[in-house]
Amino acid sequence: MLYYLMACSVECGRFCLGYKGLPHEVIWVEMHDIAATMKSIGASPTGGGRYTVPVIKDPNTGALVSDSHAIAKYLDETYPDKPLIPRGTHVLMQNFESLFSSVVLKPSLRLLMARTLEIQKDNSREFFIKTRLRMIGETSWSDVAPEDKIQVQWAALKNGLGVVDGWYQKSEGRWIMGDIFSFADIIVVCWLVWWNAILKEEERQEIYTLHEGRWGRLLRDVNSECNTDLGSVGERIQSLL
Amino acid sequence: MLYYLMACSVECGRFCLGYKGLPHEVIWVEMHDIAATMKSIGASPTGGGRYTVPVIKDPNTGALVSDSHAIAKYLDETYPDKPLIPRGTHVLMQNFESLFSSVVLKPSLRLLMARTLEIQKDNSREFFIKTRLRMIGETSWSDVAPEDKIQVQWAALKNGLGVVDGWYQKSEGRWIMGDIFSFADIIVVCWLVWWNAILKEEERQEIYTLHEGRWGRLLRDVNSECNTDLGSVGERIQSLL
Repeated sequence: MLYYLMACSVECGRFCLGYKGLPHEVIWVEMHDIAATMKSIGASPTGGGRYTVPVIKDPNTGALVSDSHAIAKYLDETYPDKPLIPRGTHVLMQNFESLFSSVVLKPSLRLLMARTLEIQKDNSREFFIKTRLRMIGETSWSDVAPEDKIQVQWAALKNGLGVVDGWYQKSEGRWIMGDIFSFADIIVVCWLVWWNAILKEEERQEIYTLHEGRWGRLLRDVNSECNTDLGSVGERIQSLL
Repeated sequence: MLYYLMACSVECGRFCLGYKGLPHEVIWVEMHDIAATMKSIGASPTGGGRYTVPVIKDPNTGALVSDSHAIAKYLDETYPDKPLIPRGTHVLMQNFESLFSSVVLKPSLRLLMARTLEIQKDNSREFFIKTRLRMIGETSWSDVAPEDKIQVQWAALKNGLGVVDGWYQKSEGRWIMGDIFSFADIIVVCWLVWWNAILKEEERQEIYTLHEGRWGRLLRDVNSECNTDLGSVGERIQSLL
């Protein structure tokens, strides 16, 4: 069984395939090549008509699936052992993603964009700047994340993680679903993996001291559950924020 | 088995007890009497240190439980047949409540407050106005919901319901959890019940024409699942928004 995976930094697809025990091949795509590559293989655009990664191509069925949630759902339908989205939780899981996003990512979006630009390759920088300025309605990159905004957004990121820590505390187990591992934990850890690649060393270290070491432990636990080894510091990652 | 239930308009507790097939007695409390009544029976305050309803008192165990989510969880632990919060979904369900609230209730809060005041008894009006002004940081009731704001908030309420309709469409079943009835559906319907009590007749009718009649159907289905008959138009309700 062979998978071709066009993976974004958030690595959701790789965790999902690893959890299912499905061998796969990863094909990296530069950010400015995504739309052309996705069109050339016949992948569908996702939300808002944009072409995004990850996308999987399943040689067993010929299916080509875009969007990490849709990928998890497709894998559950096609390979039902070890469900990623337990029966009945499809909508609750999508809502979890929305809430995680509005609690953690939205309040720190400009900080994360600034750090992401810092690791872009030269030939993707211009594309990144142009598209992200349009996304947040600014005209100059210097207005995106000046130092005072960075400080506020860094505090907001840690504050958001505090909310997510509260969810784990309430869950009565290691995972968001208590003793049931699910796609929800993969979502959280995908962002940790990405932060490992983009954040400054001292920022990264600070995250791993928060909430009694929850985030390092969670990253290890999810890697162990998925038979993966993703998120080592400084790993080469193409980001898509 | 006998329950004493101090129920708020949102009726969550009554649906939960009905679903479990647990006989109960309902004790209504006027809004301005809630704090004193709850203290007198030894109930705990809920979020933000406020005393709220519903509260249940279980004569089988002596337990006194505040907050509708905590009540559902308590009932599942004590009477495990027919779970309200299926195994593993505790946190996802709380997140569902948060998201429902921010999608539907927050954008229409002032409209809902204005309509709620209209049905308050005389001896609760002053208390309601004072506490709600403090809640939203206004000093005069005339600034809470002038006609132009009402129009915007009414559109926002319908728009929010459109989002929730999308969740039901995606769920691949009658319920938020597909073919599994859960507390999530009770949350949605509690608000419908309450709107039946507070909204103007033409507003109420408009809601029941939306989304191909989803909301009337859902109210009927949940009542049928819970062996209840809640939410008839004009039912006497004390609201707690």
